Amino acid sequence: MKSIPARIAAFHANGSDRYGLVTDEGIIDLTPEFRTRFPSLKEVIEAGALEELIKAAEGRSAAYREEDVDYLIPIDKPEKLICIGVNFPDRNAEYKDGQAAPSKPSMFIRFPRSFTGHEGNLVRPPESPQLDYEGEVTIVIGKGGRRIAEADAYDHIAALTLCNEGTIRDWVRHAKFNVTQGKNWDSSGAIGPWLVPFRSADQLDDIELTTRVNGEMRQQDRTSRMMFSFRYIIAYVSTFCTLVPGDVIVCGTPTGAGARFDPPVWLKPGDVIEVEAEGIGLLRNGVEDEQC
Amino acid sequence: MKSIPARIAAFHANGSDRYGLVTDEGIIDLTPEFRTRFPSLKEVIEAGALEELIKAAEGRSAAYREEDVDYLIPIDKPEKLICIGVNFPDRNAEYKDGQAAPSKPSMFIRFPRSFTGHEGNLVRPPESPQLDYEGEVTIVIGKGGRRIAEADAYDHIAALTLCNEGTIRDWVRHAKFNVTQGKNWDSSGAIGPWLVPFRSADQLDDIELTTRVNGEMRQQDRTSRMMFSFRYIIAYVSTFCTLVPGDVIVCGTPTGAGARFDPPVWLKPGDVIEVEAEGIGLLRNGVEDEQC
Repeated sequence: MKSIPARIAAFHANGSDRYGLVTDEGIIDLTPEFRTRFPSLKEVIEAGALEELIKAAEGRSAAYREEDVDYLIPIDKPEKLICIGVNFPDRNAEYKDGQAAPSKPSMFIRFPRSFTGHEGNLVRPPESPQLDYEGEVTIVIGKGGRRIAEADAYDHIAALTLCNEGTIRDWVRHAKFNVTQGKNWDSSGAIGPWLVPFRSADQLDDIELTTRVNGEMRQQDRTSRMMFSFRYIIAYVSTFCTLVPGDVIVCGTPTGAGARFDPPVWLKPGDVIEVEAEGIGLLRNGVEDEQC
Repeated sequence: MKSIPARIAAFHANGSDRYGLVTDEGIIDLTPEFRTRFPSLKEVIEAGALEELIKAAEGRSAAYREEDVDYLIPIDKPEKLICIGVNFPDRNAEYKDGQAAPSKPSMFIRFPRSFTGHEGNLVRPPESPQLDYEGEVTIVIGKGGRRIAEADAYDHIAALTLCNEGTIRDWVRHAKFNVTQGKNWDSSGAIGPWLVPFRSADQLDDIELTTRVNGEMRQQDRTSRMMFSFRYIIAYVSTFCTLVPGDVIVCGTPTGAGARFDPPVWLKPGDVIEVEAEGIGLLRNGVEDEQC
């Protein structure tokens, strides 16, 4: 198992939104020192200051215990939040539509409000029981650019995190095209638990990604088997739009979502979903019914 | 032809981004008085202050001639920018895929940077010659909400504008699902020319929408023929996500985009595209090749 180089989290505690370094002894609050320069982790990323924060935390003691804070999604107002679909072997076959594997990645956009933070509950709405999980490795852009070459792509990544790209499954097929409405229910997914600074290629090239529901392994694969690599994704997306610091790209889920069981198995209140990747961490969420 | 009640535009002039009231004598700059309270038109919308701006402009003289400013997209950082696809009669048949008309609207998301303002040039990238137009009526949310009833939907609209929902046509079919990448090329579309305050239902219920290329009529239909009404769209979208002030919804295009000609007719440098709707205005844009 790879170690995690450092964990920088956004969280709510003591009445306000904060960020800091997560340690085994608790969270070192960096907001008092840096809030003026960087109101949120987005500005930290824009300034390329993740390593500065980590250094500043050296020797300080934790201000909060993990269990006393509410984790927030690390970048709450990215300019772009792009999700890649159908990016692991066997995922295309799961659709059983007789179509050949696509030559280009499918992608869609989610609004940040469709996500909650680490340890928050995914919300099951009254309109559908088909709440489903999808565990995914997620990259945060540090250096912007257009038409970025694959060879240079890793230079543009500032940090890594995880996503449970929760989906209201029947609503992705409401329309002639596009999955937008099944992918954008308020608090139907999660991003977190934190940002891990991206320092070397081996943090991404071949890491294991696992999703468990109530401790049972449902998805497991390695990023080396992705049909469209992280490098390719950055190059492809930046072909049509300029990437900017803080942009978030959710890079696709392995086979084994609840929709693929026969009969399908949907998430329900009381379930605990864990998305884990070596060297990044473990994103854990419960499920609750929406209070309307 | 319905008259336009008032025109509030965002524009760049004299070295900074501004907003003001457009009159036949030029643009009355409202930025000096309101910038502190409202840095942009998004904050004006959030405060429900469009009518206050219009009133404040009474009796003042224009500071800029229209030809001396660069129009900006009216709301440049909406929390959401949602586009409705396949929403006029015959549009479904245009796809020639044998599928019945859908029972729910197709929708996708665009990033604001995929749009330029009124009188700006749409950008044709070197990767594709298939730049196409789509003229659309666009609504701006004034009052947020979740699960908004159709009967109340119009109470949630603050303003109207227009969109040329420009598309790189071959890139909408790159992937298994979704049109994301064909709809999000930098500056491939336009929003504007301005915001028109929404005061009564007859501004939306049955207005004529026309798109012309180099003076030739290409698209023309009436909003009363939309398959999914403005009221339905607001109710449907707010079922899955909370709408907030400043959210922008682009409501679908009539038949007659360039892709539907045989052979298709794509936009090229020198073309002038006009999207016009009665009571809202005329959005005009040229085309230029991207300088890479």
